[in-house]
This record gives sequence, C-alpha cells and structure tokens, in this order.
Amino acid sequence: MTTTTESPVNNGVNVEALLGAKEALTGAPEAAQFQWRAACEWQNGTHSTSTVEGFFGLGEEQKHRTTYSFDVDHPELFASEDNGATPVELVLVGLAGCLTAGVAAVAQHREIQLRKVSATIEGAMDVRGILGVDTDVRNGFSNITVTYNIDADATPDEIKALVAQSQKRSAVYDIITNPTDVRVEIA
Amino acid sequence: MTTTTESPVNNGVNVEALLGAKEALTGAPEAAQFQWRAACEWQNGTHSTSTVEGFFGLGEEQKHRTTYSFDVDHPELFASEDNGATPVELVLVGLAGCLTAGVAAVAQHREIQLRKVSATIEGAMDVRGILGVDTDVRNGFSNITVTYNIDADATPDEIKALVAQSQKRSAVYDIITNPTDVRVEIA
Repeated sequence: MTTTTESPVNNGVNVEALLGAKEALTGAPEAAQFQWRAACEWQNGTHSTSTVEGFFGLGEEQKHRTTYSFDVDHPELFASEDNGATPVELVLVGLAGCLTAGVAAVAQHREIQLRKVSATIEGAMDVRGILGVDTDVRNGFSNITVTYNIDADATPDEIKALVAQSQKRSAVYDIITNPTDVRVEIA
Repeated sequence: MTTTTESPVNNGVNVEALLGAKEALTGAPEAAQFQWRAACEWQNGTHSTSTVEGFFGLGEEQKHRTTYSFDVDHPELFASEDNGATPVELVLVGLAGCLTAGVAAVAQHREIQLRKVSATIEGAMDVRGILGVDTDVRNGFSNITVTYNIDADATPDEIKALVAQSQKRSAVYDIITNPTDVRVEIA
C-alpha cells in the first residue's frame, strides 16, 4: 500500500481574502463604490498615450504599484504609423484578461488545479461603419468569439462550468454585452 | 499692408488616404470585413499576458509593425499582485484612444489645427457586482465620463462639434454603449 499526499490546489488566487472582502462589503455598500481612471494625451495623428495609475475604492484614493502606460494607434493600412495596438484590440485584451482572471479565481474556489490556460479572442468588424461608408453598419464589433484551451485537473463539464461562472462575474463581459452610459464632455 | 502665409493644417492624419479607402470600400464590401485578435496566456493568479499581432482585413492577413504585449492583473487591494492594469482600465484606455484618434482625424478633415488634446476617463463601478455580494448590481461600469481638454485653432462650438463627430464614428464608444454578442467556447 502506498500513501499519496495530495498537495493543496494552488492557482495563485487568495480566495479567502476575496471571500473576506465580499463579507466586509456586504455591510458597507459605500466602500464598494470604485472609480477606475485613465489619462490620455494625444501625440500626433491617430497616436495617443494613456496612463493608468490611481483609482478610488474602499472609501479612499488608491494607487497601482507603478504607472502603466499604453500607446494606442491605428495600423499602417489606415495610413497611420502603427505606434501601438488599435483601440478595439485593447478592448479584446481587457476581455481576455477579465475572463482569464475569473477562470483562475473560480478554479481556486472550486479546488480545481489549473495547469495551463490560454485563449484566442476574435472580434469581427465591418469597417464600413467607422469609415462612414454605410450608416447602417455599426462602428463596433459585429460579434466576438473567445476560445479557451484549458488544461486542468477537472472533467470537461467542470471546465465548461468554470468558464461559464467566470463569464457570469466578468466586468468586461458585462461592459461589452450590455449598454453603458458614456458622457463625453469638454472641460 | 502685410501678407500672411497660412501654413496648411497638419494634425498628422492622412485624410486623403482615408477618403480613398472609404471610396474603395464603397464598391467592395467584402474587403471591409475585418477581424481583430488577441491571444491570452494565463500566468498565475489573476495575472495574464495578452499579445496583439495579426489581424485580417482588405481580404488578407495583416500584421502590426511589431507584437504588442499587455500584462493584465487585479490590484493588491483584491489580494492580487498588481502585475498590470486591470481589465476594465484597459477598456477605458481603448475608449480614450479611439475618441482621441477620431478627434485628430475629424479636425484634419475640417482643417482645424490641434495644438494639444488630453482627456481624463473615469468609470464608476459598484464592485458588489463582481464580488457576487448583490446580484442586482451589474458587474461592469455604472457609467463612464470622458472629459476633454482641447487647445486648437477653433471656436468652442467647433471643438464641441469635433468631439461629437468623433463619438459618432468611434468603434469603442459603440462597443461600450451598445450590446455586442460574445461567444465564449472551449476548444
């Protein structure tokens, strides 16, 4: 007879802290009011640089460990300089990051050890919208497909349920699939 | 009497090329079908790295000048390592980049010289949604406010009209303010 020692599941997500936060915010809705921010500076042409540093949450100003900076531009195909990813690609990256973080968190909670998680995200777009060729064509994506490849100590059904739960709690999935009020003002 | 020589407006946007593309795509709707992509790799915890390189458009595979890479993570406040901006901040950066590129393009088209364009973007979020505290609270932003500071050779009304036209043609503004179908699959 052999004795096997099971090592605890570790996906690097501190589920206890998240459950603690959930409990703490249940009685303090005002602390749950966050504000996320970006600051954008136009460079030249379609090229801009945005930075992300501070945000507001848990009743006070918060800061990232460091300032994150992003160059955004249009590709050479649209007569631009391609100094960065396009704005719509950044949205796809946000969606991928959101769903993937969710998969890891839900897996930890369900005690499923992940080994490898990767995804491809594809957004279809008819550019006659943004170019103003046909006003019946929307500017954004016609549709988005996210395809996951997940290697984990779990059955295919458990993996399917992981991804479904991540979708259910995803901020960016909600932002893309439901309308949000956006106000654009001049200072 | 003095003679003033007006230098031509130059915001770094090749409007002629864009108008050419618009004309070309008017008769070739199939060339206007684009596909934008990102590939995401889970690192550990809520940290993932996504890359953006190839896309499809004008009937063939296209490539950016270089591969753009993005680390996405949750902040320390959510017991994560803050190895990158949060997914929702990436969406704000995409919105800022999209609207700002539009402002430059529209200004060029209207022969308005821009001197300085900056914007702050704020997204309000009640995190009781993503934490599952209250299922009536949505996961995404409650609302987003974009505030532009624009220094240009134009009247306040012309500047207001610039921003309004940029909104009207913005892909990311459309993605956020209108619903998009997102399919999440397991390979």
